Amino acid sequence: MVKNEKQPDPRLLFGKRLAQLRKELGWSQEQLALESGLARSYLGGIERGQRNIALLNICRLAETLNVPVSQLMDFENKLD
Amino acid sequence: MVKNEKQPDPRLLFGKRLAQLRKELGWSQEQLALESGLARSYLGGIERGQRNIALLNICRLAETLNVPVSQLMDFENKLD
Repeated sequence: MVKNEKQPDPRLLFGKRLAQLRKELGWSQEQLALESGLARSYLGGIERGQRNIALLNICRLAETLNVPVSQLMDFENKLD
Repeated sequence: MVKNEKQPDPRLLFGKRLAQLRKELGWSQEQLALESGLARSYLGGIERGQRNIALLNICRLAETLNVPVSQLMDFENKLD
Protein backbone atom coordinates (compact mmCIF):
# COMPACT_ATOMS: atom_id res chain seq x y z
CA MET A 1 0.00 0.00 0.00
CA VAL A 2 1.05 3.53 -0.76
CA LYS A 3 -0.82 4.78 2.31
CA ASN A 4 0.91 6.24 5.32
CA GLU A 5 4.31 7.29 4.22
CA LYS A 6 3.87 9.94 6.84
CA GLN A 7 0.80 11.98 6.29
CA PRO A 8 0.77 15.69 6.96
CA ASP A 9 -1.44 16.89 9.79
CA PRO A 10 -5.06 15.88 9.10
CA ARG A 11 -6.13 19.39 10.10
CA LEU A 12 -4.16 20.79 7.18
CA LEU A 13 -5.47 18.17 4.77
CA PHE A 14 -9.03 18.77 5.85
CA GLY A 15 -8.61 22.53 5.56
CA LYS A 16 -7.35 22.24 2.00
CA ARG A 17 -10.12 19.86 1.07
CA LEU A 18 -12.75 22.19 2.49
CA ALA A 19 -11.31 25.16 0.60
CA GLN A 20 -11.20 23.07 -2.57
CA LEU A 21 -14.88 22.11 -2.38
CA ARG A 22 -15.88 25.64 -1.41
CA LYS A 23 -14.06 27.08 -4.41
CA GLU A 24 -15.62 24.51 -6.72
CA LEU A 25 -18.93 26.15 -5.85
CA GLY A 26 -17.43 29.58 -6.46
CA TRP A 27 -18.10 30.55 -2.86
CA SER A 28 -16.14 32.92 -0.64
CA GLN A 29 -15.48 32.03 3.00
CA GLU A 30 -18.07 34.65 3.81
CA GLN A 31 -20.67 32.88 1.72
CA LEU A 32 -19.86 29.51 3.26
CA ALA A 33 -20.22 31.16 6.66
CA LEU A 34 -23.62 32.54 5.77
CA GLU A 35 -24.84 29.26 4.31
CA SER A 36 -23.56 27.08 7.15
CA GLY A 37 -24.22 29.37 10.08
CA LEU A 38 -20.58 28.99 11.21
CA ALA A 39 -18.45 32.05 11.85
CA ARG A 40 -16.18 33.18 9.04
CA SER A 41 -13.22 33.45 11.41
CA TYR A 42 -13.82 29.86 12.54
CA LEU A 43 -13.96 28.67 8.92
CA GLY A 44 -10.75 30.59 8.19
CA GLY A 45 -9.03 28.77 11.04
CA ILE A 46 -10.26 25.43 9.74
CA GLU A 47 -9.06 26.13 6.20
CA ARG A 48 -5.66 27.11 7.59
CA GLY A 49 -5.48 23.80 9.47
CA GLN A 50 -5.52 25.45 12.87
CA ARG A 51 -8.61 23.79 14.28
CA ASN A 52 -9.57 20.30 15.23
CA ILE A 53 -13.10 20.39 13.86
CA ALA A 54 -15.55 17.92 15.36
CA LEU A 55 -18.04 15.56 13.77
CA LEU A 56 -21.18 17.68 13.96
CA ASN A 57 -19.55 20.65 12.24
CA ILE A 58 -17.93 18.38 9.64
CA CYS A 59 -21.39 17.04 8.82
CA ARG A 60 -22.88 20.51 8.79
CA LEU A 61 -20.28 21.66 6.27
CA ALA A 62 -20.80 18.60 4.07
CA GLU A 63 -24.52 19.26 4.04
CA THR A 64 -23.96 22.93 3.23
CA LEU A 65 -21.63 22.00 0.37
CA ASN A 66 -24.11 19.35 -0.74
CA VAL A 67 -21.60 16.50 -0.74
CA PRO A 68 -21.57 13.26 1.24
CA VAL A 69 -19.52 13.48 4.41
CA SER A 70 -17.24 10.77 3.05
CA GLN A 71 -16.43 13.01 0.08
CA LEU A 72 -15.53 15.95 2.29
CA MET A 73 -13.30 13.56 4.26
CA ASP A 74 -11.71 12.10 1.14
CA PHE A 75 -8.53 14.08 1.49
CA GLU A 76 -5.85 11.43 1.78
CA ASN A 77 -4.97 10.92 -1.85
CA LYS A 78 -6.55 13.93 -3.45
CA LEU A 79 -4.22 16.73 -2.47
CA ASP A 80 -0.64 17.44 -3.27
CA MET B 1 -31.75 12.87 -4.59
CA VAL B 2 -32.60 10.41 -1.89
CA LYS B 3 -30.25 12.19 0.51
CA ASN B 4 -31.44 14.11 3.52
CA GLU B 5 -34.87 12.82 4.32
CA LYS B 6 -33.86 13.70 7.84
CA GLN B 7 -30.74 11.94 8.92
CA PRO B 8 -30.38 10.62 12.43
CA ASP B 9 -27.75 12.27 14.60
CA PRO B 10 -24.32 11.94 12.94
CA ARG B 11 -22.88 10.95 16.31
CA LEU B 12 -25.10 7.87 16.32
CA LEU B 13 -24.28 7.04 12.71
CA PHE B 14 -20.57 7.41 13.31
CA GLY B 15 -20.77 5.28 16.45
CA LYS B 16 -22.49 2.47 14.59
CA ARG B 17 -20.03 2.69 11.75
CA LEU B 18 -17.07 2.52 14.12
CA ALA B 19 -18.53 -0.50 15.91
CA GLN B 20 -19.17 -2.17 12.56
CA LEU B 21 -15.57 -1.76 11.37
CA ARG B 22 -14.20 -2.80 14.77
CA LYS B 23 -16.28 -5.98 14.75
CA GLU B 24 -15.20 -6.77 11.20
CA LEU B 25 -11.71 -7.09 12.64
CA GLY B 26 -13.03 -9.24 15.46
CA TRP B 27 -11.83 -6.69 18.00
CA SER B 28 -13.34 -5.85 21.37
CA GLN B 29 -13.61 -2.23 22.48
CA GLU B 30 -10.76 -3.05 24.84
CA GLN B 31 -8.56 -4.12 21.95
CA LEU B 32 -9.42 -1.02 19.93
CA ALA B 33 -8.53 1.03 22.99
CA LEU B 34 -5.17 -0.67 23.31
CA GLU B 35 -4.38 -0.35 19.62
CA SER B 36 -5.45 3.28 19.32
CA GLY B 37 -4.29 4.59 22.66
CA LEU B 38 -7.75 6.02 23.34
CA ALA B 39 -9.59 5.17 26.55
CA ARG B 40 -12.09 2.33 26.39
CA SER B 41 -14.71 4.45 28.18
CA TYR B 42 -14.25 7.18 25.59
CA LEU B 43 -14.64 4.67 22.75
CA GLY B 44 -17.76 3.30 24.43
CA GLY B 45 -19.24 6.79 24.50
CA ILE B 46 -18.42 7.27 20.84
CA GLU B 47 -19.99 3.99 19.82
CA ARG B 48 -23.13 4.92 21.76
CA GLY B 49 -23.32 8.22 19.89
CA GLN B 50 -22.73 10.31 22.97
CA ARG B 51 -19.61 12.11 21.87
CA ASN B 52 -18.79 14.65 19.22
CA ILE B 53 -15.45 13.17 18.20
CA ALA B 54 -13.02 15.55 16.51
CA LEU B 55 -10.90 15.22 13.40
CA LEU B 56 -7.63 14.07 14.93
CA ASN B 57 -9.25 11.21 16.82
CA ILE B 58 -11.33 10.24 13.78
CA CYS B 59 -8.09 9.97 11.79
CA ARG B 60 -6.38 8.07 14.58
CA LEU B 61 -9.19 5.50 14.63
CA ALA B 62 -9.15 5.12 10.84
CA GLU B 63 -5.43 4.51 10.95
CA THR B 64 -5.82 2.00 13.76
CA LEU B 65 -8.54 0.17 11.82
CA ASN B 66 -6.42 0.39 8.68
CA VAL B 67 -9.10 2.01 6.56
CA PRO B 68 -9.11 5.36 4.75
CA VAL B 69 -10.76 8.12 6.77
CA SER B 70 -13.37 8.47 4.03
CA GLN B 71 -14.36 4.85 4.59
CA LEU B 72 -14.78 5.32 8.32
CA MET B 73 -16.91 8.37 7.52
CA ASP B 74 -18.99 6.56 4.92
CA PHE B 75 -21.96 6.08 7.20
CA GLU B 76 -24.75 7.88 5.39
CA ASN B 77 -26.13 5.09 3.26
CA LYS B 78 -24.58 2.05 4.82
CA LEU B 79 -26.55 1.66 8.01
CA ASP B 80 -30.17 0.90 8.66
